[in-house]
Amino acid sequence: MELLSSNKSQGGVQGVYRHASEVTGTDMTFSAFVPEHAPGAKLPVLWFLSGLTCTHANVTEKGEYRAACARHGVILVAPDTSPRGPDVPDDEAYDFGQGAGFYLDATEAPWAARFRMRSYVEQELPALVGAEFPADMGRQGITGHSMGGHGALTIGLRHPERFRSVSAFSPIAAPSRVPWGEKALGGYLGADRGAWRAYDAVALIEDGARLPELLVDTGAGDPFLDTQLKPELLEAACSRAGIALTQRLQPGYDHSYYFVSTFLGDHVAWHAERLKA
Amino acid sequence: MELLSSNKSQGGVQGVYRHASEVTGTDMTFSAFVPEHAPGAKLPVLWFLSGLTCTHANVTEKGEYRAACARHGVILVAPDTSPRGPDVPDDEAYDFGQGAGFYLDATEAPWAARFRMRSYVEQELPALVGAEFPADMGRQGITGHSMGGHGALTIGLRHPERFRSVSAFSPIAAPSRVPWGEKALGGYLGADRGAWRAYDAVALIEDGARLPELLVDTGAGDPFLDTQLKPELLEAACSRAGIALTQRLQPGYDHSYYFVSTFLGDHVAWHAERLKA
Repeated sequence: MELLSSNKSQGGVQGVYRHASEVTGTDMTFSAFVPEHAPGAKLPVLWFLSGLTCTHANVTEKGEYRAACARHGVILVAPDTSPRGPDVPDDEAYDFGQGAGFYLDATEAPWAARFRMRSYVEQELPALVGAEFPADMGRQGITGHSMGGHGALTIGLRHPERFRSVSAFSPIAAPSRVPWGEKALGGYLGADRGAWRAYDAVALIEDGARLPELLVDTGAGDPFLDTQLKPELLEAACSRAGIALTQRLQPGYDHSYYFVSTFLGDHVAWHAERLKA
Repeated sequence: MELLSSNKSQGGVQGVYRHASEVTGTDMTFSAFVPEHAPGAKLPVLWFLSGLTCTHANVTEKGEYRAACARHGVILVAPDTSPRGPDVPDDEAYDFGQGAGFYLDATEAPWAARFRMRSYVEQELPALVGAEFPADMGRQGITGHSMGGHGALTIGLRHPERFRSVSAFSPIAAPSRVPWGEKALGGYLGADRGAWRAYDAVALIEDGARLPELLVDTGAGDPFLDTQLKPELLEAACSRAGIALTQRLQPGYDHSYYFVSTFLGDHVAWHAERLKA
């Protein structure tokens, strides 16, 4: 693991790191904020998964999470959204290919070899974080924004034993039923919609996945609300399944980091309460 | 004045605006955050002047000031650092020409016609802000970072009647005596060092400018500390002049926005206390 940059902030260290990923066959970059802590202490970990076109840098620069992480003693790790590089397959569209990994393991050519963000985020990166940082991997929470909100919900629903807390901002809650998701799931996984269900939060809940509770914030003024995000489908699924969903439509807020940064500190506090219980 | 973008954040509105400047003869862009407020209310204004290479965008995206501005009811305005455009003189160096206006009115060719950031920040932009925003121009404070810290200190020292509060991050405190400043002041103002003194905080204090107090934060790990910033010269000048300087060298912090964002909320609160007294 190579240190690309390290800056003191809010009393802790905001680092950016690169490592050779076996899962994607590329170098991968991520950021990690480690609050000030007692020598030998291990801190809970909150994962933040980013949205379409983003790298680790968007939330690292614009997320405004460090003050809350420092206050509550939580490490925040922000992975990239896909493998990248000249040798990696890509697409001209912003919502497919590099920057649009959708947190799945692709099965279709030419994506299957490298577009394996599910395995990367679920297995390879946690092993690295557990080995290299003062992280208590028995206390993990996960959140994310937009495509990353989809990632947080689906990874959290598939691993209720691992994540004590799951939240999301503006998640693509039912990708099987919206244009962004139909394009991505069809392109990476093929035409069989049965294979899509492991990557669709609403479908996972319909198929029996359970979490005790979920926190979701979405801007009521988000231009993607009705066409891509569909919070009403998540609400209906959670209601039927008995999942305690706190879903807030925040009046006047949009899809940007001006919205995420307004509430990310609240989410950090919410996760910390559960991770430290 | 044209609205370029508007995003709800922290309950208020983060806007970016463009207007045709008579002073620079160019279009100028700036940002303004206006907290939620009662109809008809006028809020105090805090100016944030940015450093070399920056536009309004750096602090707007990375400064983490909105939560504090919302809490304390303070408008924050962030101007650009110079005129810009293909018709504007420039220099290949990062520390001269576009992005490096040094908050002065240039007198040397080819800079004199358009590099008039002193008049822009002292006169034209405040008139626009007072006319277009719910701003109480009787309650103004000023701060800034690096070259913008130099700007905040010198503008504040020249207008003690206007600014109730003056602070800075990592300011170039004595530009006449450091490489960044000698290059810029010599290039924009010519070889007569007497003309530089109005743009040098330490020289202004030596020449009799007074403020009741100053707050300055600088990273003790700032790579420019000894060569360009020279906080010890500001401390000596304030001590001789009886100016109550609170100058904090923050251990481990560098010159980046990871440092600025750690303490900008504290500065907003410090200004608010004085602006609302």
